[in-house]
Amino acid sequence: MIPATSALLTDLYQLTMLQGYHDAGMADTAVFEFFVRRLRPVRGFLLAAGLEQALDYLEQVRFTAQELEWLASTRRFSAAFLASLETLRFTGDVHAMPEGTAFFPNEPILRVTAPIAEAQLVETRLINLLHFATLIASKAARSVLMAPGKLLVDFGLRRAHGAEAGLLAARASYLAGFSGTSTVLAGEQFGIPLFGTMAHSFIQAHDDEALAFARFAHAQPDNVVLLIDTWDTEAAARRVVALAPRLAAAGIRIKGVRIDSGDLAEHARRVRAILDAGGLRHVIVFVSGDLDETLLRDMLAAGAPIDGFGVGTHLDTSSDLPYLDCAYKLQEYAGRARRKRSEGKATWPGRKQVYRRHGDDGRMLGDVVTLEGDDQAGEPLLAPVMRGGRRLAPSPSLDTIRSRSAASLAALPEPLRRLEPFGYPVEIAPAVRALAVAVDRDAIPFPSD
Amino acid sequence: MIPATSALLTDLYQLTMLQGYHDAGMADTAVFEFFVRRLRPVRGFLLAAGLEQALDYLEQVRFTAQELEWLASTRRFSAAFLASLETLRFTGDVHAMPEGTAFFPNEPILRVTAPIAEAQLVETRLINLLHFATLIASKAARSVLMAPGKLLVDFGLRRAHGAEAGLLAARASYLAGFSGTSTVLAGEQFGIPLFGTMAHSFIQAHDDEALAFARFAHAQPDNVVLLIDTWDTEAAARRVVALAPRLAAAGIRIKGVRIDSGDLAEHARRVRAILDAGGLRHVIVFVSGDLDETLLRDMLAAGAPIDGFGVGTHLDTSSDLPYLDCAYKLQEYAGRARRKRSEGKATWPGRKQVYRRHGDDGRMLGDVVTLEGDDQAGEPLLAPVMRGGRRLAPSPSLDTIRSRSAASLAALPEPLRRLEPFGYPVEIAPAVRALAVAVDRDAIPFPSD
Repeated sequence: MIPATSALLTDLYQLTMLQGYHDAGMADTAVFEFFVRRLRPVRGFLLAAGLEQALDYLEQVRFTAQELEWLASTRRFSAAFLASLETLRFTGDVHAMPEGTAFFPNEPILRVTAPIAEAQLVETRLINLLHFATLIASKAARSVLMAPGKLLVDFGLRRAHGAEAGLLAARASYLAGFSGTSTVLAGEQFGIPLFGTMAHSFIQAHDDEALAFARFAHAQPDNVVLLIDTWDTEAAARRVVALAPRLAAAGIRIKGVRIDSGDLAEHARRVRAILDAGGLRHVIVFVSGDLDETLLRDMLAAGAPIDGFGVGTHLDTSSDLPYLDCAYKLQEYAGRARRKRSEGKATWPGRKQVYRRHGDDGRMLGDVVTLEGDDQAGEPLLAPVMRGGRRLAPSPSLDTIRSRSAASLAALPEPLRRLEPFGYPVEIAPAVRALAVAVDRDAIPFPSD
Repeated sequence: MIPATSALLTDLYQLTMLQGYHDAGMADTAVFEFFVRRLRPVRGFLLAAGLEQALDYLEQVRFTAQELEWLASTRRFSAAFLASLETLRFTGDVHAMPEGTAFFPNEPILRVTAPIAEAQLVETRLINLLHFATLIASKAARSVLMAPGKLLVDFGLRRAHGAEAGLLAARASYLAGFSGTSTVLAGEQFGIPLFGTMAHSFIQAHDDEALAFARFAHAQPDNVVLLIDTWDTEAAARRVVALAPRLAAAGIRIKGVRIDSGDLAEHARRVRAILDAGGLRHVIVFVSGDLDETLLRDMLAAGAPIDGFGVGTHLDTSSDLPYLDCAYKLQEYAGRARRKRSEGKATWPGRKQVYRRHGDDGRMLGDVVTLEGDDQAGEPLLAPVMRGGRRLAPSPSLDTIRSRSAASLAALPEPLRRLEPFGYPVEIAPAVRALAVAVDRDAIPFPSD
């Protein structure tokens, strides 16, 4: 078991800082915001995801007696401090963009307002959850844009980075618009539609390909998708044609074939021709094997007769961009705006809101990042989702989130719907810039010198 | 909770195939091997890892009553088949390379011999565990080689792909030679040494940097590593020098400073000079921020006075190579060797062993992949680790594995100890090639046509 909401799922420095806050009696309200600093030019936009798991974590995080005993055994912390952790719960407020919202660098997608110890402790796991889900939803959205109307299935569990990554990648890709996943546990835990056919080992274990096909069809009569590339793809397609009448006589209809190697577009063309000539126009051609959104785009642009794609490794690892440059930064403490000025990592201070303007055609025109209360034209994207450590409303269903993603993708300016990088105007409002100047000026940088 | 040993942590096609095997009465012994097909030229070698978690999984995997009920609710499987899953346990044998062994493409690092349903079901999670641990251990080994004698700490949990990835990355990097991790749960679960200092938020919440330093030092008197780049790195270093005597008077010794932004090598030089001039020669300089093994190498080659490195995102995501082209393939069923001939994905059939020859200086000379029983000169790398579903011996400690990794790295041919790609001779023995020919010849490819 991996304790997904353990308070020990954090960096040691959160605990050493908490000891410091405790000893100094620092318990004022802190405001932290999670945002992406910048994007490498392989992404034009991001799709917010992971809020559901983040809120679960905030509602459930606590130190168990056994964990506190273990912490005591490390002799790193005072007894009084450890005693204070026994009752530590997250009691703060959270504002966030709904999952499925398109967003851009410098736009906070989550804001935590809480006593500093609580807001600090949760940093690591909040980043861990929001970063990964957003990474994968954003990657998945690119395939969704490239293959409209096609069946898109997440095949990535085996090369995902651990079990939680596989599960959460299934969820993130589904909410971004994928049709489903092959990960069974994601079906059980999230109700995501499951897809699955057979592996080469099933064919190999038979040696006789036609026998393997027939046995599979009888064993899974409602799910007959046959893998045809174990030995000779076109020969196997002819075998499928030969088998179809016999199966039909038993009331079994072949749904599709899968091709997993070689020149997929070319095989798909030949296989489609064989199936059509054999009276199997209804049988779909599904392909897999080292696919990403660029290949999907190119194969479909070339007119390859492909109905569906299994996308695995490149999706679940976001292989061309396996991480985002994101941060969770202190913006205010004890009622005063705060700012980090480290080289190349300076932050905008204060509690922020993002406003988005749309054109008459519903397409996005531009965003403004400003301070809360500095109302701007357009739609505010951050809304309260948790107060006093409790959700304000039941979570939206995955299908609701999926619809929001679809609306977000539909509203993207046309150039952002392509795979090539393209800028989108995000303005940092004068109010934010003025606050940064004020923070820098008012800071008494080294009063104790 | 993420059920790390759930039988549902698999691809749907494993279950559809199992229904097929069940209906056909196919229950003979299958042999599957896990190996890496090929390496992109950013890695010269791999370090085997993840066996411990793989064996845990094999010992514990089963379907719970609740999971079987859920499977029944999907109406995809027959009642007789689902009933057979109630008692399904892994009862097979496993041969494997010990964790910490260097290995190369085409060399199996794990072999499963079991009734086909068992061997098939576990494919997805076995790959998921072995792939990720090996990916991270192999990435970590590169930093270990570039920074001998330096403190190397895993800082990657926040950008790791989920909680399990963070935990297992801490373990994989430690076994490869890292000094420890910042992930608290990895300390609790694996006994890995923990390292942690403070974040910028701690300084920002004070505004007064010297006060923040002093408070932290009093709160963590045995662990005083001060973060000095929140505002002005060299000014902060001078502040550390000023603070040291006051802390010394209270019996507190400053251990180190951390720099997290800007030109790390240049800051380290200036900070080292300030500390030395201030009588703080014993205070170490620790750096972090977007580091990878190339930067470590270059900074140390340039003589930067750095004592330790926090390596996060690039380590935990293996950012330059976020996945390995690995597979778990059927090599034998019912006593007959099997082979996949898909284009670009053909496999070598049969149960295999890897022999490694060393020179008089202890360095590796070359490997031979051959069939089990075809004895070769050198050391066989695969050994039995599980029989009848039970471990043959208690697992080695992490420190034992760490020693084995160190020995593996020490035995690498000199060119493989650098970051640039370099080939290593792996011969596929004549016995394996002859078996492949025989399998292709004896296969009655389409007997039912």
